Amino acid sequence: MGDELTDRQRWTRLLICIAVGAVIWFLPPPEGVDQQGWHILAVFAATILSLLLRPYPMAVMVLAGLLVLILTRQAGETSKEALEASLSGFADTTVWLVVAAFLIAGAVIRTGLGRRLSLSLIHRLGKSPAGLAYGVGTAELVLAPVVPSNTARGGGILAPIVDAMVRTVGEGKSAAETQQLGRYLVSCGAQANLITAAMFLTGMAANPLVSAAADDVAGVRFGWIEWAMGAIVPGLIALALLPQLMKRLAPPGAIDVSAARAKARDDLAALGPRRRAETILMITLVCMLLLWASGPLHGIHTTVTAFLGILALLLTRAQSWRQLAETWGAWDALVWLGGLLTMADMLKDRGVIDWFANHAATWFDGMAPLAVALGLAIIYFYSMYGFSMLTGHISAMVGAFIAVAVAAGAPPLLIVALLAYFSNLCGCLTHYSTGPTVIYFGLGYVSVPDWFRIGFFVSLFHMVIWLGIGLPWWKLLGWW
Amino acid sequence: MGDELTDRQRWTRLLICIAVGAVIWFLPPPEGVDQQGWHILAVFAATILSLLLRPYPMAVMVLAGLLVLILTRQAGETSKEALEASLSGFADTTVWLVVAAFLIAGAVIRTGLGRRLSLSLIHRLGKSPAGLAYGVGTAELVLAPVVPSNTARGGGILAPIVDAMVRTVGEGKSAAETQQLGRYLVSCGAQANLITAAMFLTGMAANPLVSAAADDVAGVRFGWIEWAMGAIVPGLIALALLPQLMKRLAPPGAIDVSAARAKARDDLAALGPRRRAETILMITLVCMLLLWASGPLHGIHTTVTAFLGILALLLTRAQSWRQLAETWGAWDALVWLGGLLTMADMLKDRGVIDWFANHAATWFDGMAPLAVALGLAIIYFYSMYGFSMLTGHISAMVGAFIAVAVAAGAPPLLIVALLAYFSNLCGCLTHYSTGPTVIYFGLGYVSVPDWFRIGFFVSLFHMVIWLGIGLPWWKLLGWW
Repeated sequence: MGDELTDRQRWTRLLICIAVGAVIWFLPPPEGVDQQGWHILAVFAATILSLLLRPYPMAVMVLAGLLVLILTRQAGETSKEALEASLSGFADTTVWLVVAAFLIAGAVIRTGLGRRLSLSLIHRLGKSPAGLAYGVGTAELVLAPVVPSNTARGGGILAPIVDAMVRTVGEGKSAAETQQLGRYLVSCGAQANLITAAMFLTGMAANPLVSAAADDVAGVRFGWIEWAMGAIVPGLIALALLPQLMKRLAPPGAIDVSAARAKARDDLAALGPRRRAETILMITLVCMLLLWASGPLHGIHTTVTAFLGILALLLTRAQSWRQLAETWGAWDALVWLGGLLTMADMLKDRGVIDWFANHAATWFDGMAPLAVALGLAIIYFYSMYGFSMLTGHISAMVGAFIAVAVAAGAPPLLIVALLAYFSNLCGCLTHYSTGPTVIYFGLGYVSVPDWFRIGFFVSLFHMVIWLGIGLPWWKLLGWW
Repeated sequence: MGDELTDRQRWTRLLICIAVGAVIWFLPPPEGVDQQGWHILAVFAATILSLLLRPYPMAVMVLAGLLVLILTRQAGETSKEALEASLSGFADTTVWLVVAAFLIAGAVIRTGLGRRLSLSLIHRLGKSPAGLAYGVGTAELVLAPVVPSNTARGGGILAPIVDAMVRTVGEGKSAAETQQLGRYLVSCGAQANLITAAMFLTGMAANPLVSAAADDVAGVRFGWIEWAMGAIVPGLIALALLPQLMKRLAPPGAIDVSAARAKARDDLAALGPRRRAETILMITLVCMLLLWASGPLHGIHTTVTAFLGILALLLTRAQSWRQLAETWGAWDALVWLGGLLTMADMLKDRGVIDWFANHAATWFDGMAPLAVALGLAIIYFYSMYGFSMLTGHISAMVGAFIAVAVAAGAPPLLIVALLAYFSNLCGCLTHYSTGPTVIYFGLGYVSVPDWFRIGFFVSLFHMVIWLGIGLPWWKLLGWW
């Protein structure tokens, strides 16, 4: 992304971001916000805008934003204090959970375990088009807890497999038939990726931004366990119903897919017998999931568990340290996620979020708190039409939306849960919402109008599942 | 390193480290140290021992040490607190200076600027064997401030060039003549690498451990500027005299080296005209050095300057973010350096260092503080015979030595300066002291007895320069 821009386009976009930031910077701060808070907001706004316009990769813009805050001494009195404040996000426990998960995800990809699991699920379940879709969905579900890059999972591991299945089945079939099956499987795959991204704190790289906002803004703990607990019922139901729903939205046609199963079997055979590294990795992953799920019993922090998993891989030499340290996505996430968290913290500490929330809450005077929560969540969901990146959408909005809802009296855990899951589910709407949808769309089986149509109906489906089943489930959990 | 071990050797070494740690752990703590401090010391000792025995790469062992401290709750009351305490080193300003410098060093290597600068200095200065040595020394000096991996600098950039020069000159000459020239140039190159490593905080990856110990243990600020300021006079003199000294220790013989100059010219020509990325990088490096040197005027922190340099490379697209994020050495350093700093901090916070220093200081009762400082510094220097890694030597000893000297009344800045420079210079003694000496030795021009003989005389040379000229210079700076 962004790499295809010309220099002129790049600089134009950068200048737009700088200009917007500068305008906010020089406006007089509204009552209730001090000069420093306002300046931080200006830099934050310019940074978020740059995530959307993407003149440069995210990490570069976040770094630039932090450096502006340091040089203008917004982040601290002296250069050293400002620097220390700006580095604080790089020691954040949740950021390191994501870094650790990225390191493990690299192992899942390098050892071929991700591909083997996916192929074997598809081979086992893929007796029909819907069966293939269930195979893809199950593979997503199995990988999501430990592969926080939904792009690596959906776009890197599964999209190429889906493409290969469609091509194999399509041999000797008409182009229209192939296209139909492709549209069905791609739609199922892309949407399953978003559902699994929504189900786990470690299912998408920017999910910790929601957790951090929950903690900072609403004082609510929404860690790995809470996240998974709230999602497990609606998430599994959504995954189970998705291939059925898609039969209506994008019918696969009556096509014999046995060639796809055979191909999956051949590909599995080509992978050879399972190697030592894969076996160790699988055992490690199972132990990590058990430790994560049993967290309340032993009290070991999620991030510590992830690092124990990494240490197991290193000590058994299933992975070398060099292989892990070369996983650039982990360090990319460290920089952009840590930096964004730092900025959000600064806004919070300077009272900007509180000011905005109290101000905005007056708009909802007289409305039932539950209605406010639902209304805000739905606005949050559909505002994704205007964003080209889940992370940008989350960074720009989640803190403010949680703050407003809480200030208006909505149950904190409820609004956090709604926004946490909607942060990913809302990617269903367009073909440009996140890495894997872009990649799935790029396979060419789904036209733009089709994607928008299907996406809109999937959004209604999510409303039914996550409000119709999610709300009672969260009530049962005592979240509201 | 370590990769050539068999599994049995690896596990044996690991078990030795664990056993030593366990023995210390279960010993009753001496008076003046509480249980927790003692346990932290046990883990620290096992970790340092593992750096020396190297069953696994440094980062792995540091990670393991931290996880033991977390799981046994030495680092904090709850798993989360322990984790937070253990991650604190990953937000350290000096650690990020090294990370930033590693990122920039990657650019110096990738763009070919490091090679071009080195070749052009060798071409310009290399009219005689000593001239070639001056070329290598100057290249080291130019690269050292921004290439904190002395292995990348000496072993990666310069050793291959030195080897090529020797081979070129040796064509048609006798093996003995070639060997003689090789021994001369290799000895000069390896020693120049250590001198430049000693001259800059960013000249060697573990140097920040000395700075951190200075701050923690002696309350002395010894940052980039202080470091360079104290080293500039003795360092430049040592670099200037080294090729002359080496003429006596390892005479190059009367050999015509014009073929080496010609080869440097040809290699330069093969590099082609300087590219845009190189030009931008060179301008950036010059600006960074100017900003670093003028720090007291504008107050911009060294690390901030380094990040500004990185941002300049990224915004001009002289380097892509992906290229930087793939510089695995940067993240390797983040993990091991950050982790070691955290452990050293914990030892300090639990009073272990103070206890040891006060205890050991009684041994020096009645000695003049200056004599204590010099005595400790010389012991520190020659103890390197027992170490196979500069970093391990520093981690194991520097904090304790500073603490003891200060407790015995030695001038804090003086002992810090002595240990800072000796931490690198002491690598002269053996061919196994650090990455570049291992690589230079591996070229095969210097025998083991020769290396030890030359190394010992170089150590005397360093005593003369760094005590004879260094001490008056530091007196002039008011350090004692």
